[in-house]
Amino acid sequence: MNRDKQRGQLIVLSGPSGVGKSTVIAELFSQRKNIHFSVSYTTRAPRVGEQDGVNYNFVTREEFEGMIARDELLEYAEYVNNYYGTSMKVIEEKLEAGVDVLLDIEVQGAAKVRARCPDALFIFIIPPSFEELSRRLHGRHTDSEEVIAGRLAKAKEESTQIANYDYLVINDKVSNAVREIEAILTAAQCRVKNREMIYKGVFAL
Amino acid sequence: MNRDKQRGQLIVLSGPSGVGKSTVIAELFSQRKNIHFSVSYTTRAPRVGEQDGVNYNFVTREEFEGMIARDELLEYAEYVNNYYGTSMKVIEEKLEAGVDVLLDIEVQGAAKVRARCPDALFIFIIPPSFEELSRRLHGRHTDSEEVIAGRLAKAKEESTQIANYDYLVINDKVSNAVREIEAILTAAQCRVKNREMIYKGVFAL
Repeated sequence: MNRDKQRGQLIVLSGPSGVGKSTVIAELFSQRKNIHFSVSYTTRAPRVGEQDGVNYNFVTREEFEGMIARDELLEYAEYVNNYYGTSMKVIEEKLEAGVDVLLDIEVQGAAKVRARCPDALFIFIIPPSFEELSRRLHGRHTDSEEVIAGRLAKAKEESTQIANYDYLVINDKVSNAVREIEAILTAAQCRVKNREMIYKGVFAL
Repeated sequence: MNRDKQRGQLIVLSGPSGVGKSTVIAELFSQRKNIHFSVSYTTRAPRVGEQDGVNYNFVTREEFEGMIARDELLEYAEYVNNYYGTSMKVIEEKLEAGVDVLLDIEVQGAAKVRARCPDALFIFIIPPSFEELSRRLHGRHTDSEEVIAGRLAKAKEESTQIANYDYLVINDKVSNAVREIEAILTAAQCRVKNREMIYKGVFAL
């Protein structure tokens, strides 16, 4: 009997811009061991302050297309002439080693992951109210009114896909959201199908 | 947005005699609010020290058969000329009021509940090893070797039904088992289908 010998779980986290996802993820990672953040690959140029391997893995167009050709990507998309995608290789190694892997991707990418990994945990994070989402976006002081309006419209549009997720987490307070995500991960480890080897060992089945 | 307005969840907890279920339940109830322990009904006579409404609801055979006739029982069985069963009425009231309800029943009763309430959470609790289960049964100093052998045989027999449960909790330490059950209950509250009203409210869907 050893909880640590279980395979890791793939976690897909989505949520609208402004919901506070980065803060929640940072807090989750400070509290939980055995969890890895999957860094996406992109062909776009690094922005000021962005670090290779931290914000993104920055690769050339040729390298990215090589990954596509070798079917190494769990999901990818092209926006404004740049590729963005998730490599399966690192993820598979981590899961095999019993480490959970978290993907922070938007709704369309999540749908692609669902098609390939139906057993992953799909978590959508929402604000306590639409007004609060607007307040948070305004409070960042980084976007114009027009950009904020666009983000709010996209949030509403993406919310129609929530029914495709397994879990809904409410980020009214970071500590509540983290507590809920922690519970979701722990509960998933307790699923009978993830512990088949354990109980069959105990009862010699 | 109000987590407290969610309907309660029905939790079915099973596990072999000696696994430490009562201790785990007592600890869970001391830590968690909004959870109700469903007390079974029986026609057998109270034993010394047993209290009506605490250990069982003690009723007459006529009363019990009236509940059967009115289809008020979620599950029931007859052992050695006595009825044992679970009343649906109190459970439904509690769930409606947003209170979780825990049933401590064995494998056959759980199967009957599953047929009527497929959305309930089915949790099976196991010892860390079969040897440890045997040690715990011997440590109680209440049963003869023959009775203990019977309990161990029944544990092995019931373990073949674990695949019908949703979650497997390992009681190596009471605190671990309680932590896992707490996570399972919290995660279940986060299921998208249980929070449909919340996200539809936030996004005006």
